Amino acid sequence: MSKIRVGMIGYKFMGKAHSNAYRALPMFFPDVPKPEMKAICGRDPEGLEQARAQFGWESAETDWRDLIARDDIDLIDINAPSDAHKEIALAAAAAGKHIFCEKPLALNLADSVEMLEAAENAGIKHLVGFNYRFAPAVQLAKKLIAEGRIGKIYHFRGLFLQDFIVDPEFPLVWRLQKEIAGSGSHGDLGAHVIDMARFLVGEFQEVIGMSETFIKERPIPSAMTGLSAKGDKDAPRGPVTVDDATLFLARFAGGALGSIEATRFAPGHRCTNSFEINGSKGSIKFDFERVNELQVYFTDDAPDVQGFRRVLATDPAHAYSEAWWPPGHTIGYEHTFTHELHELMLALSEDRQPVPNFHDGVACQAVLEAVDKSIEERRWVSISELR
Amino acid sequence: MSKIRVGMIGYKFMGKAHSNAYRALPMFFPDVPKPEMKAICGRDPEGLEQARAQFGWESAETDWRDLIARDDIDLIDINAPSDAHKEIALAAAAAGKHIFCEKPLALNLADSVEMLEAAENAGIKHLVGFNYRFAPAVQLAKKLIAEGRIGKIYHFRGLFLQDFIVDPEFPLVWRLQKEIAGSGSHGDLGAHVIDMARFLVGEFQEVIGMSETFIKERPIPSAMTGLSAKGDKDAPRGPVTVDDATLFLARFAGGALGSIEATRFAPGHRCTNSFEINGSKGSIKFDFERVNELQVYFTDDAPDVQGFRRVLATDPAHAYSEAWWPPGHTIGYEHTFTHELHELMLALSEDRQPVPNFHDGVACQAVLEAVDKSIEERRWVSISELR
Amino acid sequence: MSKIRVGMIGYKFMGKAHSNAYRALPMFFPDVPKPEMKAICGRDPEGLEQARAQFGWESAETDWRDLIARDDIDLIDINAPSDAHKEIALAAAAAGKHIFCEKPLALNLADSVEMLEAAENAGIKHLVGFNYRFAPAVQLAKKLIAEGRIGKIYHFRGLFLQDFIVDPEFPLVWRLQKEIAGSGSHGDLGAHVIDMARFLVGEFQEVIGMSETFIKERPIPSAMTGLSAKGDKDAPRGPVTVDDATLFLARFAGGALGSIEATRFAPGHRCTNSFEINGSKGSIKFDFERVNELQVYFTDDAPDVQGFRRVLATDPAHAYSEAWWPPGHTIGYEHTFTHELHELMLALSEDRQPVPNFHDGVACQAVLEAVDKSIEERRWVSISELR
Amino acid sequence: MSKIRVGMIGYKFMGKAHSNAYRALPMFFPDVPKPEMKAICGRDPEGLEQARAQFGWESAETDWRDLIARDDIDLIDINAPSDAHKEIALAAAAAGKHIFCEKPLALNLADSVEMLEAAENAGIKHLVGFNYRFAPAVQLAKKLIAEGRIGKIYHFRGLFLQDFIVDPEFPLVWRLQKEIAGSGSHGDLGAHVIDMARFLVGEFQEVIGMSETFIKERPIPSAMTGLSAKGDKDAPRGPVTVDDATLFLARFAGGALGSIEATRFAPGHRCTNSFEINGSKGSIKFDFERVNELQVYFTDDAPDVQGFRRVLATDPAHAYSEAWWPPGHTIGYEHTFTHELHELMLALSEDRQPVPNFHDGVACQAVLEAVDKSIEERRWVSISELR
Repeated sequence: MSKIRVGMIGYKFMGKAHSNAYRALPMFFPDVPKPEMKAICGRDPEGLEQARAQFGWESAETDWRDLIARDDIDLIDINAPSDAHKEIALAAAAAGKHIFCEKPLALNLADSVEMLEAAENAGIKHLVGFNYRFAPAVQLAKKLIAEGRIGKIYHFRGLFLQDFIVDPEFPLVWRLQKEIAGSGSHGDLGAHVIDMARFLVGEFQEVIGMSETFIKERPIPSAMTGLSAKGDKDAPRGPVTVDDATLFLARFAGGALGSIEATRFAPGHRCTNSFEINGSKGSIKFDFERVNELQVYFTDDAPDVQGFRRVLATDPAHAYSEAWWPPGHTIGYEHTFTHELHELMLALSEDRQPVPNFHDGVACQAVLEAVDKSIEERRWVSISELR
Repeated sequence: MSKIRVGMIGYKFMGKAHSNAYRALPMFFPDVPKPEMKAICGRDPEGLEQARAQFGWESAETDWRDLIARDDIDLIDINAPSDAHKEIALAAAAAGKHIFCEKPLALNLADSVEMLEAAENAGIKHLVGFNYRFAPAVQLAKKLIAEGRIGKIYHFRGLFLQDFIVDPEFPLVWRLQKEIAGSGSHGDLGAHVIDMARFLVGEFQEVIGMSETFIKERPIPSAMTGLSAKGDKDAPRGPVTVDDATLFLARFAGGALGSIEATRFAPGHRCTNSFEINGSKGSIKFDFERVNELQVYFTDDAPDVQGFRRVLATDPAHAYSEAWWPPGHTIGYEHTFTHELHELMLALSEDRQPVPNFHDGVACQAVLEAVDKSIEERRWVSISELR
Repeated sequence: MSKIRVGMIGYKFMGKAHSNAYRALPMFFPDVPKPEMKAICGRDPEGLEQARAQFGWESAETDWRDLIARDDIDLIDINAPSDAHKEIALAAAAAGKHIFCEKPLALNLADSVEMLEAAENAGIKHLVGFNYRFAPAVQLAKKLIAEGRIGKIYHFRGLFLQDFIVDPEFPLVWRLQKEIAGSGSHGDLGAHVIDMARFLVGEFQEVIGMSETFIKERPIPSAMTGLSAKGDKDAPRGPVTVDDATLFLARFAGGALGSIEATRFAPGHRCTNSFEINGSKGSIKFDFERVNELQVYFTDDAPDVQGFRRVLATDPAHAYSEAWWPPGHTIGYEHTFTHELHELMLALSEDRQPVPNFHDGVACQAVLEAVDKSIEERRWVSISELR
Repeated sequence: MSKIRVGMIGYKFMGKAHSNAYRALPMFFPDVPKPEMKAICGRDPEGLEQARAQFGWESAETDWRDLIARDDIDLIDINAPSDAHKEIALAAAAAGKHIFCEKPLALNLADSVEMLEAAENAGIKHLVGFNYRFAPAVQLAKKLIAEGRIGKIYHFRGLFLQDFIVDPEFPLVWRLQKEIAGSGSHGDLGAHVIDMARFLVGEFQEVIGMSETFIKERPIPSAMTGLSAKGDKDAPRGPVTVDDATLFLARFAGGALGSIEATRFAPGHRCTNSFEINGSKGSIKFDFERVNELQVYFTDDAPDVQGFRRVLATDPAHAYSEAWWPPGHTIGYEHTFTHELHELMLALSEDRQPVPNFHDGVACQAVLEAVDKSIEERRWVSISELR
């Protein structure tokens, strides 16, 4: 198997990020099958054609059913709005296509379980887009934990802080509407932290949360345009129906304590996706705004030189790094997708499920909903209650 | 009023810190009454005499009742173990002495309320030792918030991380025994974060928490010696009866969301007493390990130069700083006590209650117990339930 | 003009970096002519074909003369070893091809002047590869200075620190041989700092330097392979003929004082290309290991909140950033080349010389040689002595 | 020997800093003889009496000759203006008093040599106030180097950056007048860096420097008041006769290369006294604005976790730290003097010369003057030329 033929649905922020990864992969990672950018799919013909030309796809389709029906496509990449994931994925699975689905897998747990079952029944390969796992610094964290170098884990402290909607005049974009986005900061940002915790610490056992919508009404924009919409002071107002911030406490199956927070109301934090892990032998800190760095501490360092080390994860000793540039030459956010794609292509060539896959999407969704339930019912909720 | 005659009970860590403040105050802050170090009090005559000579107290008493009975003492400084605070404070109040009491005010809310009432009834002045308020960087945070420069507060995120008992062979010192210490990381460390939150954000409304004792048994030390006890591998084991870590979520009366964590199981953190506050106009970050620094962000900075500023709070524009050294010449942890003492002496000379006083001690204790109750009953607890 | 047809000579580290930029440009910057990757050129047919396929070039040439002779090529990209730059550039200019030449322009000033004159006489466009200018954070530094927001510049302090040859057993690769590399840390690393200083501060006036080769002999490698060669303990030794470290002081024409250092003997610094500029109204700091960040200080900030701001140059207010990802989503080292290429394509479409061009290559070389001369003659050397 | 009776001449910034150390020493370091604060000396009776009372000296003298003549004084502490050091020191030595002299030892090398000879001939003990050596983090640096843990030293890079005179309206205080101050940033700030380099790296061999006075005239203040004088826009102007900034390159006797810069024109740097040392086995970084921290890197750390460690030098493993507070509880700038005094008292009790002593003062002065000479004659100057 030397090539995988891809059809991608969606061409906005994530469509651009995925396209970039498809283009980069064969140049930097010729060890895995090459993705062929066969077709891009979207509803607006004009915008679609522009994206096709700019991103470098061979062809375009305006109906995703047509895309799935094509027999020159092996893999369906779903990065359309979240509310469309399920229908597309079920159809793709039915057609025997492998699936690369952006997170969140679906708008709710039931849907995501349905997607997982469909994929499993169809015998296809499936990956869910928790790209942050694939930063070399995060891979290093995983390696240190897996090798026991941090010891037994006591604490996981995860934050995802943004500030793009702090201004009350920021408009009521689709991300602030529950029927389209499914969730606010919790599902959009918190989901990444939950996946990170599962990746590094293990399964959640029980949770209790709290959430708030600080700005309850916002100007309705004339055209919906994702993150970049401009507000209009005299525009009519509509209700914000998702959370601005959600925090929760957690107990992990392995005994660790967790604290997780996602907010879009943290001025000065453009994209602070950060965590700290404390274990019996050491600690680890990561901040996505410095995506190439990991802070590491070991309790068994000599007593006079104990301290967090700032490790720049660009050395040959670090995952993926040798494919890129010499030590000290950093890579950007975008290549978390390239590495994610590497995992997908490698798994396809090895005929195994890639990781993270729909199981992880379902597990993440279960935690999200357990938190929601805990907020609604003001009590601790065990993850097992939801499955 | 040019002098205040002090009798101090306790001569360990806090006794040393207070003594240092008494010695430093008149040199750097001659604007307030000078504390006269009349007598130090403790039970062990030998250790007491050594402390007296080393710290510079005029005389020593081995019975605190004798100290309180002396008519050449205006102010009783209580930094004996927490379980002795109440009895001493009640006696001091009854004798009409002003009181400077270390935190925690008492082992439980009921006791602290009793202390407050006794002090109020006696008409004395009282201060409780939340010294971290008095770092110039923290004072700057307070000023920025008070002046509205951070706007409406949305988030308070507070941590107090230490690592001195991570080793399972660290012995069962008194701080790990509930009957003496009252509480573990929660009461010892979390109390400081709670006070910081009250100082900067306002009153707590409701809380829900979680706690854990990771190491349930430890070697019994031959002699109890605070932080520095050495473990003995073959020593018999005894149960740890306080929490190693306590986390909680909170809602503030003003609408902000809070997340607070205290743990002694965070390797690499010798004393990370840190917080971040996000408001509608900006953010503030503080970490006690860099006690002279405050990180500040403003949303109305020019769009191309927005970013957290590292402010070194050693300029004439910063509280207390002009009394010390030129800009850029940092001061240490110890002078949070000197500034705290300045507030006490100033309040005495102005015949007003100092801040923070027993009201703050009570309020902090109420939050601590609300958290305890929330852990025990696994539900949200309103602070008002406890008063 | 919608396309520029490119032929590239060289396919190692820089060939890879350039290829990546050619691939990325049209996707992220469709506003400029698209570079067509017509042909790649190198001497080893096998390695060349692998690079061609991996990097995505249409064809390959093993003789650069054949490449230049092709009439389907508009632009010659020279990133062959430094000692080949001149001959190729002269031929390309003679053939009327535009030139994108990696730094150093040539092995010495005389050669670089000859190249500049040939290019000017031929009326072609020419760019020299000082890619670090094109980091958005550096562009922000330039903007702040140009707008007078830093005031009159007093100090430039530039460092380029690496550590890849600290081990005495690191072999005698071509970069350590004067006849091929021309220079050591001075020409390789210092050249970047000199260009940065010229870009931000202006022309150098006079310099005095010092240099050292700490490890005078190294094992001769069996095969020359750039940075990654492995040493062999029993291999015969050969002399290192370039500098391990070079430092110099400088006076700028505008009155600023400069201090510049380049070394490959700074353990812990994989690629610290950093500078600080102090002016009458503020200061700027940059470190390439955190390529997305600029530290900025303004003297007219309010007295109580003065401090260096950490600006993440990923906002719409920052150069190039809107073409990439949302704020806070960093880019990597590699896109300094993409932006450099953007300047080249834009200049070609506007029929103007791109910047930096061969004039800048010559000016940089003049400073390098003035430093060399100052070291040899142990005296201050004016840049004007060399032209 | 349990007590040393001290007479101190000077009561401004350094007088305050020394007094603070005399008061702190016996409380925190009862292991060494206790300094008795017998007498303080200054010319203005009113200011002197205020200082005496505030700092806690037993008596006051307005003529330093009277102070030296007293037979109840063992040690003369000289922190009067630099131009008075020599005369006082010669008299003190003649009277057989030990001497603690602030830096600079004298206004020039000849004077400082004379002082050294007088002290040696008199058989007294002498210490010169290079207090920065005594930060625990700097002591750790020294220890790591002495134990060979950094290997052979290749580079020393030292900066002392301040910004208090960047405003051109800052008045012409005595520090800006050569006849009183002797030197500007070079002698005031650079001297500290030179001493640090000598302490950590060893002797200087040759130097070449550059200096500048950016603001050549300033308003004459009505009253001379050190750092804090306020400017008057309409005041007459006078010439600044010292350097605003001085930079120099150096070669050390041990083969290391040095770069040293002192400036008062670095906005944002209140007191950045920083250095970095690179050796064959690791690197060390220090910044006085974070006086409790040392950054340390080791080449032999495991390949995947190499990085600078941030060591908080407050553990029992660090010099002086056990005398203070628990780990993580920082100390301030001021206690570099307390530790310096500890060395002096310890040396007196052990009947040996303290370090640094007048030999170090002379050696530092020689380097300062070699730099001056190199600037004047625009050539490399060997330190040996001056002795």
